[in-house]
Amino acid sequence: MNTGTLGPQQSYSERATRVWLDLCGNNEETIHFFDDIPDVFNALIEKKITVGIVPIENSIEGSVGVTLDLLMEKNVTIIAGIVVPIRHCLISKGKPEEIQIILSHPHALAQCRQFLKENFPNAELRTTGSTSHAARLATEFNEMAAIASEAAAKTYGLNILLSGIQDWDKNETRFIVMVSSQNKQQLCIPQEITSNTKTSIIIYLDSDRPGALYEILREFATRNINLTRIESRPSKKSLGDYLFYIDLEGTIEDTNIREAIQQIKLKTMNLKMLGSYGEYLVEKDNGRGDSNENVR
Amino acid sequence: MNTGTLGPQQSYSERATRVWLDLCGNNEETIHFFDDIPDVFNALIEKKITVGIVPIENSIEGSVGVTLDLLMEKNVTIIAGIVVPIRHCLISKGKPEEIQIILSHPHALAQCRQFLKENFPNAELRTTGSTSHAARLATEFNEMAAIASEAAAKTYGLNILLSGIQDWDKNETRFIVMVSSQNKQQLCIPQEITSNTKTSIIIYLDSDRPGALYEILREFATRNINLTRIESRPSKKSLGDYLFYIDLEGTIEDTNIREAIQQIKLKTMNLKMLGSYGEYLVEKDNGRGDSNENVR
Repeated sequence: MNTGTLGPQQSYSERATRVWLDLCGNNEETIHFFDDIPDVFNALIEKKITVGIVPIENSIEGSVGVTLDLLMEKNVTIIAGIVVPIRHCLISKGKPEEIQIILSHPHALAQCRQFLKENFPNAELRTTGSTSHAARLATEFNEMAAIASEAAAKTYGLNILLSGIQDWDKNETRFIVMVSSQNKQQLCIPQEITSNTKTSIIIYLDSDRPGALYEILREFATRNINLTRIESRPSKKSLGDYLFYIDLEGTIEDTNIREAIQQIKLKTMNLKMLGSYGEYLVEKDNGRGDSNENVR
Repeated sequence: MNTGTLGPQQSYSERATRVWLDLCGNNEETIHFFDDIPDVFNALIEKKITVGIVPIENSIEGSVGVTLDLLMEKNVTIIAGIVVPIRHCLISKGKPEEIQIILSHPHALAQCRQFLKENFPNAELRTTGSTSHAARLATEFNEMAAIASEAAAKTYGLNILLSGIQDWDKNETRFIVMVSSQNKQQLCIPQEITSNTKTSIIIYLDSDRPGALYEILREFATRNINLTRIESRPSKKSLGDYLFYIDLEGTIEDTNIREAIQQIKLKTMNLKMLGSYGEYLVEKDNGRGDSNENVR
Protein backbone atom coordinates (compact mmCIF):
# COMPACT_ATOMS: atom_id res chain seq x y z
CA MET A 1 0.00 0.00 0.00
CA ASN A 2 3.01 2.29 0.49
CA THR A 3 2.13 4.20 3.62
CA GLY A 4 3.95 7.24 5.01
CA THR A 5 3.74 9.07 8.31
CA LEU A 6 5.55 11.45 10.60
CA GLY A 7 8.76 10.06 12.08
CA PRO A 8 10.73 9.20 14.09
CA GLN A 9 9.90 5.56 14.68
CA GLN A 10 7.87 4.74 17.80
CA SER A 11 6.00 8.00 17.57
CA TYR A 12 2.25 7.99 18.08
CA SER A 13 2.07 8.59 14.35
CA GLU A 14 3.70 5.20 13.84
CA ARG A 15 1.20 3.71 16.25
CA ALA A 16 -1.75 5.11 14.28
CA THR A 17 -0.15 3.85 11.09
CA ARG A 18 0.36 0.35 12.52
CA VAL A 19 -3.28 0.26 13.58
CA TRP A 20 -4.31 1.26 10.06
CA LEU A 21 -2.07 -1.37 8.44
CA ASP A 22 -3.31 -4.05 10.86
CA LEU A 23 -6.92 -3.21 10.02
CA CYS A 24 -6.00 -3.47 6.33
CA GLY A 25 -4.31 -6.82 6.92
CA ASN A 26 -0.93 -5.41 5.81
CA ASN A 27 0.86 -5.62 9.12
CA GLU A 28 4.16 -6.59 7.54
CA GLU A 29 4.42 -3.46 5.44
CA THR A 30 7.40 -1.11 5.88
CA ILE A 31 6.35 2.41 6.85
CA HIS A 32 7.93 5.46 5.23
CA PHE A 33 8.88 8.03 7.88
CA PHE A 34 9.03 11.74 7.09
CA ASP A 35 10.61 14.60 9.01
CA ASP A 36 7.53 16.73 9.23
CA ILE A 37 3.86 16.99 8.31
CA PRO A 38 4.36 18.98 5.05
CA ASP A 39 6.69 16.22 3.81
CA VAL A 40 3.93 13.63 4.27
CA PHE A 41 1.51 15.75 2.21
CA ASN A 42 4.14 16.37 -0.47
CA ALA A 43 5.04 12.69 -0.75
CA LEU A 44 1.35 11.94 -1.26
CA ILE A 45 0.95 14.57 -3.97
CA GLU A 46 4.17 13.46 -5.68
CA LYS A 47 2.92 9.83 -5.52
CA LYS A 48 5.93 8.66 -3.51
CA ILE A 49 3.38 7.18 -1.11
CA THR A 50 -0.22 6.07 -1.62
CA VAL A 51 -1.48 6.67 1.91
CA GLY A 52 -0.39 9.39 4.33
CA ILE A 53 -1.24 9.47 8.03
CA VAL A 54 -0.88 12.67 10.08
CA PRO A 55 -2.15 14.03 13.42
CA ILE A 56 -4.96 16.59 13.21
CA GLU A 57 -6.04 17.16 16.81
CA ASN A 58 -4.99 16.36 20.37
CA SER A 59 -7.54 16.49 23.16
CA ILE A 60 -5.27 18.64 25.33
CA GLU A 61 -3.17 20.67 22.92
CA GLY A 62 -5.92 21.34 20.37
CA SER A 63 -5.70 21.31 16.59
CA VAL A 64 -2.54 20.78 14.61
CA GLY A 65 -2.53 24.00 12.62
CA VAL A 66 -0.12 22.83 9.94
CA THR A 67 -2.36 19.88 9.11
CA LEU A 68 -5.44 22.11 8.85
CA ASP A 69 -3.61 24.52 6.55
CA LEU A 70 -2.30 21.76 4.30
CA LEU A 71 -5.75 20.18 4.03
CA MET A 72 -6.86 23.46 2.45
CA GLU A 73 -3.79 23.78 0.20
CA LYS A 74 -3.24 20.26 -1.06
CA ASN A 75 -5.44 18.06 -3.18
CA VAL A 76 -5.99 15.22 -0.70
CA THR A 77 -8.97 13.24 0.53
CA ILE A 78 -9.48 11.87 4.05
CA ILE A 79 -10.47 8.20 3.96
CA ALA A 80 -10.37 7.32 7.67
CA GLY A 81 -9.77 8.66 11.17
CA ILE A 82 -7.79 6.89 13.90
CA VAL A 83 -7.96 8.04 17.52
CA VAL A 84 -4.98 6.95 19.61
CA PRO A 85 -4.84 7.26 23.42
CA ILE A 86 -1.66 8.85 24.74
CA ARG A 87 -0.11 7.05 27.68
CA HIS A 88 3.03 8.33 29.38
CA CYS A 89 5.28 6.08 31.49
CA LEU A 90 8.06 6.83 33.94
CA ILE A 91 10.99 4.71 32.79
CA SER A 92 14.49 4.31 34.21
CA LYS A 93 17.44 2.00 34.80
CA GLY A 94 17.15 2.78 38.51
CA LYS A 95 14.59 2.35 41.25
CA PRO A 96 11.95 4.99 42.11
CA GLU A 97 13.86 6.05 45.24
CA GLU A 98 17.03 6.68 43.22
CA ILE A 99 15.44 9.15 40.76
CA GLN A 100 16.85 12.67 40.97
CA ILE A 101 16.51 13.92 37.39
CA ILE A 102 13.45 13.48 35.15
CA LEU A 103 13.78 14.12 31.43
CA SER A 104 11.18 14.58 28.72
CA HIS A 105 9.70 16.71 25.98
CA PRO A 106 8.23 19.90 27.53
CA HIS A 107 4.68 18.89 26.56
CA ALA A 108 5.02 15.50 28.24
CA LEU A 109 6.45 17.10 31.40
CA ALA A 110 3.51 19.53 31.41
CA GLN A 111 1.02 16.71 30.92
CA CYS A 112 2.41 14.85 33.98
CA ARG A 113 2.86 17.96 36.10
CA GLN A 114 0.53 17.02 38.97
CA PHE A 115 2.00 13.53 39.11
CA LEU A 116 5.53 14.93 39.29
CA LYS A 117 4.61 17.45 42.00
CA GLU A 118 3.06 14.77 44.17
CA ASN A 119 5.57 12.00 43.64
CA PHE A 120 8.88 13.65 42.78
CA PRO A 121 8.64 17.15 44.29
CA ASN A 122 12.44 17.46 44.54
CA ALA A 123 13.46 15.96 41.20
CA GLU A 124 15.16 18.22 38.69
CA LEU A 125 13.15 18.41 35.45
CA ARG A 126 15.08 18.64 32.17
CA THR A 127 13.60 19.13 28.72
CA THR A 128 14.57 17.20 25.59
CA GLY A 129 13.56 17.44 21.95
CA SER A 130 11.47 14.26 22.07
CA THR A 131 10.40 11.69 24.64
CA SER A 132 12.49 9.02 22.92
CA HIS A 133 15.58 11.22 23.22
CA ALA A 134 14.80 11.48 26.94
CA ALA A 135 14.65 7.66 27.10
CA ARG A 136 18.03 7.36 25.40
CA LEU A 137 19.64 9.82 27.83
CA ALA A 138 18.09 7.98 30.80
CA THR A 139 20.09 4.86 29.93
CA GLU A 140 23.22 6.60 31.24
CA PHE A 141 22.54 6.90 34.99
CA ASN A 142 20.37 5.12 37.56
CA GLU A 143 19.26 8.45 39.03
CA MET A 144 17.75 9.57 35.73
CA ALA A 145 14.23 8.74 34.56
CA ALA A 146 12.42 9.64 31.38
CA ILE A 147 8.75 10.26 30.70
CA ALA A 148 8.23 8.30 27.51
CA SER A 149 6.30 5.41 26.06
CA GLU A 150 6.25 1.75 26.90
CA ALA A 151 7.81 1.14 23.49
CA ALA A 152 10.68 3.52 24.28
CA ALA A 153 11.32 1.57 27.51
CA LYS A 154 11.60 -1.63 25.48
CA THR A 155 13.84 -0.09 22.83
CA TYR A 156 16.30 1.31 25.37
CA GLY A 157 16.09 -1.56 27.86
CA LEU A 158 14.66 0.57 30.68
CA ASN A 159 12.22 -0.46 33.39
CA ILE A 160 8.69 0.89 33.47
CA LEU A 161 8.43 2.26 37.01
CA LEU A 162 4.91 3.62 36.52
CA SER A 163 2.49 3.67 33.63
CA GLY A 164 -0.31 6.11 32.69
CA ILE A 165 1.14 8.98 34.69
CA GLN A 166 -0.43 11.83 32.68
CA ASP A 167 -2.68 14.12 34.72
CA TRP A 168 -5.63 14.06 32.36
CA ASP A 169 -6.99 10.64 31.71
CA LYS A 170 -8.52 11.68 28.42
CA ASN A 171 -5.40 12.46 26.44
CA GLU A 172 -5.78 11.27 22.88
CA THR A 173 -4.67 12.27 19.43
CA ARG A 174 -6.83 12.04 16.33
CA PHE A 175 -5.04 11.06 13.12
CA ILE A 176 -6.34 11.21 9.59
CA VAL A 177 -5.61 8.69 6.85
CA MET A 178 -5.32 10.49 3.51
CA VAL A 179 -4.89 9.68 -0.16
CA SER A 180 -4.24 11.94 -3.10
CA SER A 181 -7.65 13.06 -4.42
CA GLN A 182 -6.81 11.62 -7.84
CA ASN A 183 -6.30 8.27 -6.24
CA LYS A 184 -9.15 7.66 -3.89
CA GLN A 185 -11.07 5.02 -5.78
CA GLN A 186 -8.24 2.50 -5.56
CA LEU A 187 -8.38 1.83 -1.84
CA CYS A 188 -10.62 -0.47 0.11
CA ILE A 189 -11.44 0.71 3.60
CA PRO A 190 -11.38 -1.89 6.40
CA GLN A 191 -14.82 -2.76 7.74
CA GLU A 192 -13.89 -1.74 11.29
CA ILE A 193 -13.80 1.87 10.23
CA THR A 194 -16.88 2.14 8.08
CA SER A 195 -19.14 2.93 11.05
CA ASN A 196 -19.22 6.25 12.96
CA THR A 197 -18.97 8.15 9.74
CA LYS A 198 -18.43 11.85 9.44
CA THR A 199 -17.92 14.31 6.64
CA SER A 200 -15.26 17.02 6.81
CA ILE A 201 -15.49 20.23 4.82
CA ILE A 202 -13.72 23.58 4.69
CA ILE A 203 -15.76 26.68 3.93
CA TYR A 204 -14.27 29.98 2.87
CA LEU A 205 -16.61 32.85 3.63
CA ASP A 206 -15.65 35.71 1.36
CA SER A 207 -16.84 38.39 3.74
CA ASP A 208 -16.84 38.96 7.44
CA ARG A 209 -20.42 40.09 7.14
CA PRO A 210 -22.29 39.30 10.37
CA GLY A 211 -24.45 36.25 9.94
CA ALA A 212 -22.49 34.66 7.08
CA LEU A 213 -21.62 31.63 9.18
CA TYR A 214 -25.14 31.54 10.59
CA GLU A 215 -26.60 31.21 7.09
CA ILE A 216 -24.31 28.27 6.43
CA LEU A 217 -25.25 26.55 9.66
CA ARG A 218 -28.93 27.03 8.84
CA GLU A 219 -28.50 24.64 5.90
CA PHE A 220 -27.37 21.95 8.32
CA ALA A 221 -29.81 22.77 11.13
CA THR A 222 -32.92 22.71 8.96
CA ARG A 223 -31.86 19.31 7.62
CA ASN A 224 -31.22 17.86 11.07
CA ILE A 225 -27.51 17.39 10.41
CA ASN A 226 -25.35 17.38 13.54
CA LEU A 227 -22.00 19.20 13.65
CA THR A 228 -19.31 17.38 15.62
CA ARG A 229 -16.66 20.06 15.30
CA ILE A 230 -16.28 23.61 14.06
CA GLU A 231 -13.14 25.67 14.02
CA SER A 232 -12.29 28.99 12.41
CA ARG A 233 -8.83 29.69 11.03
CA PRO A 234 -7.50 32.86 9.43
CA SER A 235 -7.49 32.51 5.64
CA LYS A 236 -4.08 34.27 5.64
CA LYS A 237 -5.37 36.53 2.86
CA SER A 238 -6.31 39.39 5.12
CA LEU A 239 -7.24 39.93 8.73
CA GLY A 240 -10.87 39.14 9.51
CA ASP A 241 -10.99 36.64 6.65
CA TYR A 242 -11.77 33.18 7.88
CA LEU A 243 -11.88 29.58 6.85
CA PHE A 244 -14.23 27.30 8.77
CA TYR A 245 -13.36 23.66 9.29
CA ILE A 246 -16.56 21.73 9.93
CA ASP A 247 -17.14 18.05 10.72
CA LEU A 248 -20.65 16.66 10.26
CA GLU A 249 -22.24 13.39 11.31
CA GLY A 250 -23.01 11.27 8.27
CA THR A 251 -21.67 10.83 4.76
CA ILE A 252 -21.96 12.70 1.49
CA GLU A 253 -24.07 9.78 0.27
CA ASP A 254 -26.85 10.87 2.66
CA THR A 255 -29.32 12.94 0.65
CA ASN A 256 -29.69 15.63 3.32
CA ILE A 257 -25.93 16.20 3.58
CA ARG A 258 -25.55 16.29 -0.20
CA GLU A 259 -28.36 18.84 -0.47
CA ALA A 260 -27.00 21.00 2.33
CA ILE A 261 -23.59 21.08 0.70
CA GLN A 262 -25.09 21.97 -2.67
CA GLN A 263 -26.93 24.90 -1.09
CA ILE A 264 -23.85 26.08 0.77
CA LYS A 265 -21.80 25.99 -2.41
CA LEU A 266 -24.11 28.65 -3.83
CA LYS A 267 -23.46 30.92 -0.85
CA THR A 268 -19.70 30.67 -0.40
CA MET A 269 -16.57 31.52 -2.36
CA ASN A 270 -15.19 28.08 -1.83
CA LEU A 271 -16.28 24.83 -0.26
CA LYS A 272 -13.71 22.08 -0.10
CA MET A 273 -14.83 18.50 0.52
CA LEU A 274 -12.19 16.73 2.57
CA GLY A 275 -14.04 13.43 2.55
CA SER A 276 -16.62 11.22 4.22
CA TYR A 277 -15.01 8.57 6.39
CA GLY A 278 -15.28 6.35 9.43
CA GLU A 279 -13.25 6.73 12.60
CA TYR A 280 -11.53 3.97 14.55
CA LEU A 281 -10.94 4.40 18.28
CA VAL A 282 -7.90 2.53 19.54
CA GLU A 283 -8.65 1.13 22.98
CA LYS A 284 -6.55 2.01 25.97
CA ASP A 285 -4.18 -0.48 27.58
CA ASN A 286 -3.80 -2.83 24.67
CA GLY A 287 -0.10 -3.01 25.42
CA ARG A 288 1.11 -1.07 22.43
CA GLY A 289 1.19 2.39 23.99
CA ASP A 290 4.26 3.97 22.48
CA SER A 291 5.24 7.60 22.52
CA ASN A 292 7.90 9.66 20.98
CA GLU A 293 7.03 13.11 19.92
CA ASN A 294 4.58 13.24 22.78
CA VAL A 295 1.24 13.99 21.22
CA ARG A 296 2.19 13.35 17.63
CA MET B 1 1.24 45.40 39.53
CA ASN B 2 2.71 41.92 40.22
CA THR B 3 2.61 40.28 36.83
CA GLY B 4 3.29 36.62 36.08
CA THR B 5 3.82 34.69 32.86
CA LEU B 6 5.20 31.51 31.41
CA GLY B 7 8.97 31.12 31.76
CA PRO B 8 11.77 30.76 31.01
CA GLN B 9 13.06 34.28 30.51
CA GLN B 10 13.35 35.55 26.95
CA SER B 11 10.34 33.55 25.89
CA TYR B 12 7.72 35.21 23.73
CA SER B 13 5.58 35.19 26.86
CA GLU B 14 8.12 37.49 28.46
CA ARG B 15 7.98 39.68 25.36
CA ALA B 16 4.18 39.99 25.56
CA THR B 17 4.49 40.76 29.27
CA ARG B 18 7.12 43.46 28.67
CA VAL B 19 4.86 45.05 26.05
CA TRP B 20 1.99 45.05 28.55
CA LEU B 21 4.14 46.55 31.32
CA ASP B 22 5.52 49.20 28.95
CA LEU B 23 1.99 50.19 27.93
CA CYS B 24 1.09 50.42 31.62
CA GLY B 25 4.17 52.56 32.29
CA ASN B 26 5.59 49.91 34.66
CA ASN B 27 8.60 48.90 32.60
CA GLU B 28 10.86 48.46 35.61
CA GLU B 29 8.66 45.81 37.19
CA THR B 30 10.09 42.36 37.91
CA ILE B 31 8.15 39.59 36.16
CA HIS B 32 7.24 36.35 37.95
CA PHE B 33 8.03 33.35 35.75
CA PHE B 34 6.11 30.09 36.07
CA ASP B 35 6.91 26.62 34.77
CA ASP B 36 3.69 26.11 32.89
CA ILE B 37 0.36 27.64 32.00
CA PRO B 38 -1.66 26.04 34.86
CA ASP B 39 0.80 27.57 37.34
CA VAL B 40 0.06 31.06 35.98
CA PHE B 41 -3.70 30.50 36.42
CA ASN B 42 -3.21 29.08 39.92
CA ALA B 43 -1.01 31.98 41.02
CA LEU B 44 -3.73 34.36 39.84
CA ILE B 45 -6.47 32.52 41.75
CA GLU B 46 -4.29 32.26 44.87
CA LYS B 47 -3.55 36.01 44.59
CA LYS B 48 0.21 35.47 44.34
CA ILE B 49 0.05 37.63 41.23
CA THR B 50 -2.45 40.30 40.15
CA VAL B 51 -2.04 39.93 36.38
CA GLY B 52 -1.33 36.74 34.42
CA ILE B 53 -0.29 36.63 30.77
CA VAL B 54 -0.51 33.39 28.76
CA PRO B 55 -0.54 32.38 25.07
CA ILE B 56 -3.94 31.40 23.67
CA GLU B 57 -3.35 30.96 19.93
CA ASN B 58 -0.56 30.79 17.38
CA SER B 59 -1.27 31.50 13.74
CA ILE B 60 0.51 28.33 12.63
CA GLU B 61 0.08 25.87 15.47
CA GLY B 62 -3.50 26.83 16.38
CA SER B 63 -5.07 27.17 19.80
CA VAL B 64 -3.32 26.44 23.06
CA GLY B 65 -5.69 23.82 24.43
CA VAL B 66 -4.56 24.07 28.04
CA THR B 67 -5.33 27.80 28.08
CA LEU B 68 -8.80 27.24 26.62
CA ASP B 69 -9.55 24.55 29.20
CA LEU B 70 -8.35 26.67 32.12
CA LEU B 71 -10.39 29.65 30.93
CA MET B 72 -13.45 27.44 31.43
CA GLU B 73 -12.30 26.03 34.78
CA LYS B 74 -10.89 29.06 36.57
CA ASN B 75 -12.55 32.24 37.67
CA VAL B 76 -10.55 34.71 35.58
CA THR B 77 -11.37 37.67 33.35
CA ILE B 78 -9.52 38.69 30.20
CA ILE B 79 -8.66 42.40 30.26
CA ALA B 80 -6.46 42.69 27.13
CA GLY B 81 -5.00 40.84 24.17
CA ILE B 82 -1.41 41.18 22.91
CA VAL B 83 -0.39 39.81 19.51
CA VAL B 84 3.35 39.19 19.17
CA PRO B 85 5.07 38.42 15.84
CA ILE B 86 7.39 35.42 15.95
CA ARG B 87 10.75 35.96 14.28
CA HIS B 88 13.35 33.22 14.07
CA CYS B 89 17.06 33.96 13.51
CA LEU B 90 19.96 31.74 12.53
CA ILE B 91 22.64 32.41 15.13
CA SER B 92 26.15 31.01 15.50
CA LYS B 93 29.73 31.63 16.63
CA GLY B 94 30.87 30.68 13.13
CA LYS B 95 30.35 31.91 9.59
CA PRO B 96 27.53 30.66 7.31
CA GLU B 97 29.96 28.50 5.29
CA GLU B 98 31.18 26.74 8.43
CA ILE B 99 27.72 25.57 9.58
CA GLN B 100 27.28 21.79 9.62
CA ILE B 101 24.82 21.25 12.46
CA ILE B 102 21.65 23.27 13.09
CA LEU B 103 19.92 22.99 16.46
CA SER B 104 16.47 24.08 17.62
CA HIS B 105 13.13 23.17 19.11
CA PRO B 106 11.26 20.84 16.69
CA HIS B 107 8.55 23.47 16.04
CA ALA B 108 11.12 26.12 15.13
CA LEU B 109 12.93 23.69 12.80
CA ALA B 110 9.60 22.88 11.17
CA GLN B 111 8.74 26.55 10.79
CA CYS B 112 12.04 27.21 8.96
CA ARG B 113 11.95 24.03 6.94
CA GLN B 114 11.90 25.57 3.46
CA PHE B 115 14.66 27.99 4.40
CA LEU B 116 16.83 25.13 5.68
CA LYS B 117 16.20 23.00 2.58
CA GLU B 118 17.23 25.82 0.27
CA ASN B 119 20.17 27.20 2.21
CA PHE B 120 21.56 24.34 4.27
CA PRO B 121 20.49 21.17 2.43
CA ASN B 122 23.37 19.17 3.89
CA ALA B 123 23.30 20.39 7.47
CA GLU B 124 22.44 17.91 10.19
CA LEU B 125 19.33 19.02 12.11
CA ARG B 126 19.20 18.32 15.84
CA THR B 127 16.26 18.94 18.16
CA THR B 128 16.46 20.56 21.59
CA GLY B 129 13.89 21.24 24.32
CA SER B 130 13.80 24.98 23.66
CA THR B 131 15.31 27.43 21.21
CA SER B 132 17.33 29.06 24.02
CA HIS B 133 18.83 25.68 24.87
CA ALA B 134 19.85 25.38 21.21
CA ALA B 135 21.52 28.80 21.46
CA ARG B 136 23.47 27.73 24.53
CA LEU B 137 24.69 24.54 22.82
CA ALA B 138 25.70 26.53 19.72
CA THR B 139 28.25 28.47 21.78
CA GLU B 140 30.44 25.35 21.82
CA PHE B 141 31.51 24.99 18.19
CA ASN B 142 31.83 27.25 15.13
CA GLU B 143 30.16 24.64 12.93
CA MET B 144 26.97 24.71 15.03
CA ALA B 145 24.13 27.17 14.55
CA ALA B 146 20.87 27.56 16.43
CA ILE B 147 17.47 28.77 15.30
CA ALA B 148 16.49 31.11 18.10
CA SER B 149 15.66 34.70 18.85
CA GLU B 150 17.67 37.86 18.53
CA ALA B 151 17.56 38.08 22.33
CA ALA B 152 19.06 34.59 22.65
CA ALA B 153 21.90 35.65 20.31
CA LYS B 154 22.65 38.58 22.61
CA THR B 155 22.45 36.50 25.79
CA TYR B 156 24.86 33.87 24.50
CA GLY B 157 27.13 36.22 22.54
CA LEU B 158 26.36 34.65 19.16
CA ASN B 159 26.21 36.36 15.77
CA ILE B 160 22.92 36.75 13.95
CA LEU B 161 23.71 35.24 10.53
CA LEU B 162 20.19 35.71 9.19
CA SER B 163 16.98 37.10 10.65
CA GLY B 164 13.31 36.33 9.93
CA ILE B 165 14.04 32.90 8.47
CA GLN B 166 10.62 31.32 9.19
CA ASP B 167 8.82 30.08 6.07
CA TRP B 168 5.49 31.74 6.82
CA ASP B 169 5.70 35.45 7.15
CA LYS B 170 2.56 35.61 9.22
CA ASN B 171 3.69 33.73 12.32
CA GLU B 172 2.29 35.37 15.40
CA THR B 173 1.10 34.38 18.83
CA ARG B 174 -1.87 35.91 20.59
CA PHE B 175 -1.55 36.34 24.36
CA ILE B 176 -4.26 37.22 26.85
CA VAL B 177 -3.82 39.42 29.89
CA MET B 178 -5.96 38.11 32.75
CA VAL B 179 -6.96 39.05 36.27
CA SER B 180 -8.84 37.10 38.89
CA SER B 181 -12.55 37.80 38.34
CA GLN B 182 -12.85 39.10 41.91
CA ASN B 183 -10.21 41.65 41.16
CA LYS B 184 -11.03 43.20 37.85
CA GLN B 185 -12.18 46.64 38.95
CA GLN B 186 -8.78 47.56 40.33
CA LEU B 187 -6.87 47.75 37.07
CA CYS B 188 -6.68 50.57 34.62
CA ILE B 189 -6.21 49.49 31.02
CA PRO B 190 -3.68 51.43 28.90
CA GLN B 191 -5.29 53.60 26.26
CA GLU B 192 -3.42 51.88 23.43
CA ILE B 193 -5.48 48.74 23.99
CA THR B 194 -8.93 50.15 24.41
CA SER B 195 -9.66 50.13 20.68
CA ASN B 196 -10.31 47.02 18.54
CA THR B 197 -12.47 45.60 21.26
CA LYS B 198 -13.84 42.11 21.32
CA THR B 199 -15.86 40.02 23.72
CA SER B 200 -14.97 36.41 24.48
CA ILE B 201 -17.50 33.90 25.73
CA ILE B 202 -17.71 30.17 26.28
CA ILE B 203 -21.01 28.43 25.63
CA TYR B 204 -21.85 24.98 26.87
CA LEU B 205 -24.58 23.39 24.79
CA ASP B 206 -26.25 20.74 26.88
CA SER B 207 -27.24 18.59 23.93
CA ASP B 208 -25.77 17.59 20.64
CA ARG B 209 -29.14 18.24 19.09
CA PRO B 210 -28.68 19.41 15.48
CA GLY B 211 -29.19 23.14 15.22
CA ALA B 212 -28.31 24.01 18.81
CA LEU B 213 -25.29 26.06 17.75
CA TYR B 214 -27.28 27.55 14.88
CA GLU B 215 -29.87 28.92 17.32
CA ILE B 216 -27.11 30.57 19.31
CA LEU B 217 -25.55 32.14 16.24
CA ARG B 218 -28.96 33.47 15.19
CA GLU B 219 -28.93 35.73 18.24
CA PHE B 220 -25.73 37.32 16.96
CA ALA B 221 -26.65 37.35 13.27
CA THR B 222 -30.01 39.06 13.73
CA ARG B 223 -28.31 41.76 15.80
CA ASN B 224 -25.55 42.34 13.25
CA ILE B 225 -22.81 41.18 15.59
CA ASN B 226 -19.71 39.84 13.88
CA LEU B 227 -17.93 36.71 15.09
CA THR B 228 -14.15 36.89 14.84
CA ARG B 229 -13.47 33.36 16.03
CA ILE B 230 -15.33 30.19 16.86
CA GLU B 231 -13.90 26.96 18.13
CA SER B 232 -15.47 23.84 19.54
CA ARG B 233 -13.80 21.80 22.25
CA PRO B 234 -14.96 18.59 23.89
CA SER B 235 -16.54 19.37 27.27
CA LYS B 236 -14.72 16.27 28.64
CA LYS B 237 -18.00 15.20 30.23
CA SER B 238 -18.99 12.81 27.49
CA LEU B 239 -18.31 12.29 23.82
CA GLY B 240 -20.38 14.53 21.57
CA ASP B 241 -20.65 17.16 24.31
CA TYR B 242 -19.08 20.44 23.26
CA LEU B 243 -18.02 23.78 24.53
CA PHE B 244 -17.89 26.63 22.02
CA TYR B 245 -15.35 29.41 22.39
CA ILE B 246 -16.63 32.47 20.57
CA ASP B 247 -15.07 35.90 20.06
CA LEU B 248 -17.34 38.76 18.99
CA GLU B 249 -16.57 42.24 17.74
CA GLY B 250 -17.64 44.83 20.30
CA THR B 251 -18.05 45.00 24.05
CA ILE B 252 -20.62 43.88 26.57
CA GLU B 253 -21.48 47.56 27.01
CA ASP B 254 -22.99 47.57 23.49
CA THR B 255 -26.73 47.07 23.86
CA ASN B 256 -26.97 44.54 21.02
CA ILE B 257 -24.25 42.33 22.48
CA ARG B 258 -25.75 42.52 25.95
CA GLU B 259 -29.17 41.56 24.59
CA ALA B 260 -27.79 38.70 22.50
CA ILE B 261 -26.00 37.29 25.50
CA GLN B 262 -29.10 37.58 27.66
CA GLN B 263 -31.08 35.63 25.07
CA ILE B 264 -28.39 32.98 24.73
CA LYS B 265 -28.26 32.50 28.49
CA LEU B 266 -31.88 31.36 28.34
CA LYS B 267 -31.00 28.70 25.76
CA THR B 268 -27.82 27.18 27.15
CA MET B 269 -26.73 25.23 30.20
CA ASN B 270 -23.88 27.61 30.81
CA LEU B 271 -22.53 30.80 29.29
CA LYS B 272 -19.26 32.05 30.67
CA MET B 273 -18.22 35.65 30.01
CA LEU B 274 -14.46 35.78 29.66
CA GLY B 275 -14.40 39.54 29.22
CA SER B 276 -14.60 42.47 26.81
CA TYR B 277 -11.17 43.82 25.98
CA GLY B 278 -8.97 45.56 23.46
CA GLU B 279 -6.13 43.94 21.55
CA TYR B 280 -2.67 45.40 20.95
CA LEU B 281 -0.69 44.29 17.89
CA VAL B 282 3.07 44.44 18.40
CA GLU B 283 4.71 45.61 15.19
CA LYS B 284 7.30 43.52 13.43
CA ASP B 285 10.97 44.42 13.40
CA ASN B 286 11.04 46.66 16.39
CA GLY B 287 14.28 45.02 17.41
CA ARG B 288 12.97 43.08 20.36
CA GLY B 289 12.14 39.82 18.63
CA ASP B 290 13.04 37.22 21.17
CA SER B 291 12.18 33.56 21.16
CA ASN B 292 12.55 30.74 23.53
CA GLU B 293 9.90 28.14 23.63
CA ASN B 294 9.24 28.83 20.00
CA VAL B 295 5.64 29.90 19.76
CA ARG B 296 5.00 30.48 23.45
